Amino acid sequence: MRASEFDLIARLRERVPASSARVRVGSGDDAAVTEPEGAAATTIDALVEGVHFTLPEFPLAAVGRKAMAAGLSDLAAMGAEPGEAYVAVGAPDAMSDDELVELADGIAETAELGGVVIAGGDLTAAPVLFLCVTCVGYERPGVPLVTRAGANPGDMVVVTGELGGAAAGLALLTGAASAEALDDAARSSLVARQLEPAPRLAGGRALAAAGASAMIDISDGLGADAAHVAAASGRGLEIELERVPLAAGVEEVAGGRSEGLRLAAEGGEDYELLATIGAEDLGAARRALDDAGYGLTEIGVVTNGDGPVLRDADGRELEVHGFDHRRGSPSG
Amino acid sequence: MRASEFDLIARLRERVPASSARVRVGSGDDAAVTEPEGAAATTIDALVEGVHFTLPEFPLAAVGRKAMAAGLSDLAAMGAEPGEAYVAVGAPDAMSDDELVELADGIAETAELGGVVIAGGDLTAAPVLFLCVTCVGYERPGVPLVTRAGANPGDMVVVTGELGGAAAGLALLTGAASAEALDDAARSSLVARQLEPAPRLAGGRALAAAGASAMIDISDGLGADAAHVAAASGRGLEIELERVPLAAGVEEVAGGRSEGLRLAAEGGEDYELLATIGAEDLGAARRALDDAGYGLTEIGVVTNGDGPVLRDADGRELEVHGFDHRRGSPSG
Repeated sequence: MRASEFDLIARLRERVPASSARVRVGSGDDAAVTEPEGAAATTIDALVEGVHFTLPEFPLAAVGRKAMAAGLSDLAAMGAEPGEAYVAVGAPDAMSDDELVELADGIAETAELGGVVIAGGDLTAAPVLFLCVTCVGYERPGVPLVTRAGANPGDMVVVTGELGGAAAGLALLTGAASAEALDDAARSSLVARQLEPAPRLAGGRALAAAGASAMIDISDGLGADAAHVAAASGRGLEIELERVPLAAGVEEVAGGRSEGLRLAAEGGEDYELLATIGAEDLGAARRALDDAGYGLTEIGVVTNGDGPVLRDADGRELEVHGFDHRRGSPSG
Repeated sequence: MRASEFDLIARLRERVPASSARVRVGSGDDAAVTEPEGAAATTIDALVEGVHFTLPEFPLAAVGRKAMAAGLSDLAAMGAEPGEAYVAVGAPDAMSDDELVELADGIAETAELGGVVIAGGDLTAAPVLFLCVTCVGYERPGVPLVTRAGANPGDMVVVTGELGGAAAGLALLTGAASAEALDDAARSSLVARQLEPAPRLAGGRALAAAGASAMIDISDGLGADAAHVAAASGRGLEIELERVPLAAGVEEVAGGRSEGLRLAAEGGEDYELLATIGAEDLGAARRALDDAGYGLTEIGVVTNGDGPVLRDADGRELEVHGFDHRRGSPSG
């Protein structure tokens, strides 16, 4: 039995960070009122049961974390300062109030980690669970927001952190891979990449401040996201797959090094950042990313070509499929 | 067979108004970049098949219009200048590209009517159709945004336009009422109140400029929305139901005058505005609303009491149930 919706919303509101200096009127009126400082970056993402996650394989808190992470990762990719989030939830009648609170706790956890307040929301009935999150961030004085469109020939192509972990974690969660040789620490760490995504907000700000010319978050997979940057910039991106940093255990889950690299290129949902940056700015970016704790790796170069080219260790060009984020599966 | 999602998104993008002086980077990057002028009002609403609408009773264009109207009506209730909208759509695989375009045309129609541009979106697979719309509006210089919280004892309670039409239209659409005596014009007009909602943006701006002390849009029903204002303001609202302006045909659909007034009080989705305003400001507000073309009616007064009181023609207090907007049905 569901409590009255207004009581439930009041209960959910207590779980999430809800106030900041920028929020004049928070959740509960017809609209939230905020006082933006400078340009705003705004993004909307929907996460749907059976498409982007399954129950009960995904704990509800992890569903909340993933929904919030998708939007925060977009803000990271702009180099934005996180501001506010607005969350709509469609919940089946069978979900108990306690289950909704668990979901809200996941949302709150990642919102706090990312430094956004939840300034508004909507709760509705729905046949399956879905979440829709709008995240708003802000341009910092003197540091323009970074789009996908500014890659220049000769720029380095860099990625933050390690790739392939989220896809390997998903394979372990769904039983698609067992990887019995994997030790418990590596297994937990891969599953955490799927269930506890950590958007690279500090990394995005650091790359923007260091002068990144284009940036995107790796949500569809390295190959697909490199294609987005190439298309928006009207340039080519030459990537040496061998240089891509793999999360520990990815090779074991994928069944070999080249299979692991393919998982990194096609898997998606890693929520690392892909950026292009002039060689003269690379040193400053690398130091800032080391400070942020997840490192920066040079994996290629921007060319006058057209589209992305991914090469294997022998220099052969690979055809990669993107992770279809809208369908929760690799696209053909 | 669905076209590639990127082609489809490009096709959908062509259908919606997408650029304005405020939008530096529109749909297609990790986030839209806007240049807010002053305080922003932001609201999020989800609309779900089987909860807020049914197919095929609702044309897809009407579903698009309704989803956009809910957010625009919230902006109207703040007295905000409309700015940008962000639209996430979850669509079943069985929906064709042409059906999605019909949906987009409905979204575009109401967005243009309301004066917002679609600055971003997301398209995902889903077991049923749902739309999630975030609308952003702005405070105008010298005219503070109006919340639900400012009603003062002695203020007049006013409503724009006519009530009950959307609920009566829904009853006709679903076959819950037939009202055979109703002429075609009245029937079409009631159905249009349900399928072609027209948020009162000009009315909201006029009421804010005239000095409205509190405002809300009538989406849950007059009784429930009056309760929201009373609770937020810590005041009572005394409403004489007999004075509530009914849309033509509502009495016939409801089966009598008092049943029609009850439909107006409980029905919801009219997207008219309920405001409180000092008696000295009422004349200016009335003139502005007459100019906007949908009039303003005084229906009650703000008291030092607690909660809303709705009285019938004999002065008897009525107990009314709100329209549960989150479940698409009257709440108990």
